[in-house]
Order: sequence, then C-alpha cells, then structure tokens
Amino acid sequence: MPELAWVNGEITDLYDAKVPFMDHGYLFGYGVYEALKVYNGQPFSVEEHMDRFERSMKEIRIKPELSRKETIEIINDLVAKSEYQDALVYLQITRGVGPRNNPSLPKAKPTLSMFVAYLPPIDDSFRQNGVKTVIVKDDRWAHPHIKSLNLLPNILAKQIAEENDAFEAILADKDGIVTEGASSNVYAVFKDTIVTRPTDGRILSGITRLVLCKIIQQNGFNYKEDYFTTEQLKEADEVFITNTGAEVLAVSDIDGTKIGNGLCGPITKKLYDLFIQEVNREIRR
Amino acid sequence: MPELAWVNGEITDLYDAKVPFMDHGYLFGYGVYEALKVYNGQPFSVEEHMDRFERSMKEIRIKPELSRKETIEIINDLVAKSEYQDALVYLQITRGVGPRNNPSLPKAKPTLSMFVAYLPPIDDSFRQNGVKTVIVKDDRWAHPHIKSLNLLPNILAKQIAEENDAFEAILADKDGIVTEGASSNVYAVFKDTIVTRPTDGRILSGITRLVLCKIIQQNGFNYKEDYFTTEQLKEADEVFITNTGAEVLAVSDIDGTKIGNGLCGPITKKLYDLFIQEVNREIRR
Repeated sequence: MPELAWVNGEITDLYDAKVPFMDHGYLFGYGVYEALKVYNGQPFSVEEHMDRFERSMKEIRIKPELSRKETIEIINDLVAKSEYQDALVYLQITRGVGPRNNPSLPKAKPTLSMFVAYLPPIDDSFRQNGVKTVIVKDDRWAHPHIKSLNLLPNILAKQIAEENDAFEAILADKDGIVTEGASSNVYAVFKDTIVTRPTDGRILSGITRLVLCKIIQQNGFNYKEDYFTTEQLKEADEVFITNTGAEVLAVSDIDGTKIGNGLCGPITKKLYDLFIQEVNREIRR
Repeated sequence: MPELAWVNGEITDLYDAKVPFMDHGYLFGYGVYEALKVYNGQPFSVEEHMDRFERSMKEIRIKPELSRKETIEIINDLVAKSEYQDALVYLQITRGVGPRNNPSLPKAKPTLSMFVAYLPPIDDSFRQNGVKTVIVKDDRWAHPHIKSLNLLPNILAKQIAEENDAFEAILADKDGIVTEGASSNVYAVFKDTIVTRPTDGRILSGITRLVLCKIIQQNGFNYKEDYFTTEQLKEADEVFITNTGAEVLAVSDIDGTKIGNGLCGPITKKLYDLFIQEVNREIRR
C-alpha cells in the first residue's frame, strides 16, 4: 500500500513528489490546507472539510481552478489507488509560482497538492487513560481561524509537548485564557456541562468540533460556548480534545496536574462512542 | 544572464528548481531566510546577514550542515555563474523532509536553498519624490524578530499596499504604535532627530538598519530609539524606510497624508548618500 502524492495532476510515491522552489507556498507559507480521515476507504465529512477549504482560500485570496466536485473525485481516486482503508488525506493549495517580489501574482495558477498517508491509530492506553498535555503561550498571528500553512508557532508548541512526553500543547493567551490545542480544539466538563471556546476568530473551527457539537445537542447534553483559563481547565471534572486524527480524546494531565481521576471520564467516553456511531452512519461498510 | 537556483547542491535555472512536497518548509513554513543585495557582483554585508541567519536558525532549532564559510562560497559561486553584477541573493533553510505528523524530525537533513535573481532598481522618481505608503494592522505572530518563512500577514499587507498604489505597508499594533514596514524598517525625523523603534522583539533587526545606525552615529546625527504612533509619524518632518532592496528610501505619503513638503527630505537624502558611500567602501570596483 503506497503512500501517494498528487501535485497539479501528477501522481507519485509520497516522498518522490516535488513542488517548485518559487512556489509562494514554499517562500511565504502562502496557502491553506485540510486533513481528512479515511475510514473503510472513504474520507469522512468531505463536504464540511471542503466548506472550510473554500472559506480559507477566500480569506487569503486564492481562487481554485478545480470545482469542489472535481477535487473530491481526485481525492477519492487517490485514496482508491493507495489501497488504504484507514489513512489520512492531506489537501493543500498555494498561491502558485512567481517572482518573490510580487506579492499578489495575478497571473499565477495555484498549486493544488494532496497526499494519502498512513495514520497511526491512537494507542489503546491513551483512549482508556487519556493523554498528557502542556500549556504553551499562544504566539500565533491574529487570524488562526484561517487554516493556513503559517504553522511555525504550532510546530514549536508541539516540540515543547514532545520534549515533555505530552501528546498535545494547549495554547493560552497572555491572560491565561485557553484558545485551543496546537492541532486540536479543547473542551472542559464542569459537573455535567461541556464547555468549549466560541469560534471567535482566535481558534480554528474544527470539523470534528462541528460534528461533535451536533451530537452534543442532539443527545441533550448540557453545553455552553464560553471562555476558561488554564487554572479553571485544571480544575475541570473532565477535559478532552478533538481533531480529525484523535477524534475525541481524554486529557488526564495538564502540566503535571491530574484531571478528575486521571482516566477517560464518563462524558468523554460517551461522546467518543457517539462520534464513532456518527462515523459509522456516514461511512458505507 | 540566467536567474539561477541552488537546492541542496543542485544548480538549475530558477524556475526549474524543485523542492520536496514533504519538506516542512512547504507544509508549515518551518524555515528562515535572508535576502542580500549584490553590487558589482559582490553580496553586501555578507557577515551581518550570516550572523542573523545563524541566530534565526537557532531560534527555531535548525542546525545547518554547512559552515558559514562553505555557505558564503556557494553564494559567491552562484553569483559568479549567474553573471549578474547587480542582483538579489535569496538564501533559505528549512527543517527538511519527513512525515507531517512528526513536529521535530530529529533525523532529517535541513533543505538549504538559494537563488540569484534580477532586482529591479528603485525608480528615479521614487528616489527624488519618496513613495506612497498605507497603514495596515500588524497581525503577525509574537516573534517577528525571527526572519521566518511564516510571511502570510506580510504578504496580505503588501497586497493592500499594492491595491492602493502604495510602495509599502507600514504596520501598527492595536494601540496605533508603529512596528515596522511589511518588508522594511521605518524611521521618522522630528526636527533634526532621527527616531526608529528599538529592536524589542516586535520588529526584525534589519541589516540595512544596522549599517545605517552605525553611519548615523559616526556622522553625529541626533538619533533616538523610541516608539511613535501612526499619527505622530504623519506629523514628522521626514519619514523613510530601509531594507536590502530599497536601501534608504523617503516616504512622502502615508494613507493620503503628505509628509513634509512631499519630496525626499534633506536628512533622508544625506543618509542615502552616506549609505551608498558605505557600500562603495565595502564593494571592490
């Protein structure tokens, strides 16, 4: 099962794929992306990902050459060719190729690229016991709701997590208010109420967050969009994160403080089960 | 005279040069760069640029494989091969190639790349009459002193400048305090005192700024590192910007407000002449 790349129409093995040096994605990070999870050979929540991809492109003035339908067909073909049943699809578009001193490249054709790669499953022990996290200062630019390639602060935060044997870095602003994880949304459960930050432009509007919020409302959980500090988060009864790869994953430790009883809490467990049911409803088996 | 690229040892025409799709420079903007001006076939202030390049690499944990001496030799060879007498040298290093879900790539070899390209001279009328600028909100991350590839906010600011027929975007924080230009440092002259923002981590420490500050001090100008608002800047007697390409360039218009008499002021003119003298001292003719 090869990991495959597709770059402006050309399919190669993932690590043979090349892009132009003068692509403004490489020189400036001038591009946006999506990451989709493939279950049973089918990408999950494709339309929601494409909605966000189109919003992101518009925000940074990239006009795609292909329609949504054409893009999804290419994704599906690439997944089929890779023969992966469970994998990650990564989709990226940049402003394209041109002189470095031209910021807008009015005549350039965007570079569309994607790949299908192996996605390691979440450890069973992480599912049962939750994961360790660290708090890192949110040093990002003013528009993290745009899913752009300017990810250096996220990567540096992830490296701090890695050095501390943590799974994720939870970002907090200068006042100690949690924004989100370096690559996830963050939720606290206080008594029986699930709380997460509103999509106020300072966080990414996660697709797993979107799906889970529907599930939360359909199943009658108490739910509130609100702000919380890192100190409040540490005192929550349960804490969990969501993203495409990790789905719904309990946090059992924040900067060395144990959360709840240090295991995946009952509400988190229930939400994970409901999320997987939702995946199974959408994905044909 | 070909525009040439050098990528990890391979020399090609600039627009034939390729880099790996899975380079973390392309996926995350995980890299840093320098831009040097070539006068009479010789890059100016090479050691100062290399000092900053090494500081930038260290800040984001990239360890170069080549020594400074080896890198400078490659730059000089590439300039010689290009046959350009006056040009831009662009130098970039990224964290290298590896799986997207590995933030630190401990075993990856960094991707070193560079190019020599034509650099259009500054219009004579810009030299005489100064340039138009616009004020744009500084939306960048918390560490703009690192010369990283995460340049999306700079590019979007440059696009706003372009749309307003302006040469540069002057960035200001939420309190209206000027940080720097999207690709330049900014200076105000109040009466006979030259003022520019201190290198406090919120601006890039420009190499032209560094050279000019020495010139300012050696020639007994009144000089102060201090903060100023956009409103104060508009009331200055002279305003100018510096960067590698534009050297020392007068600003005659900020958001439609004329600065001074709307021409290049006497102090700016004097500093430009002294800067060119400094270039001529360093460059062998």
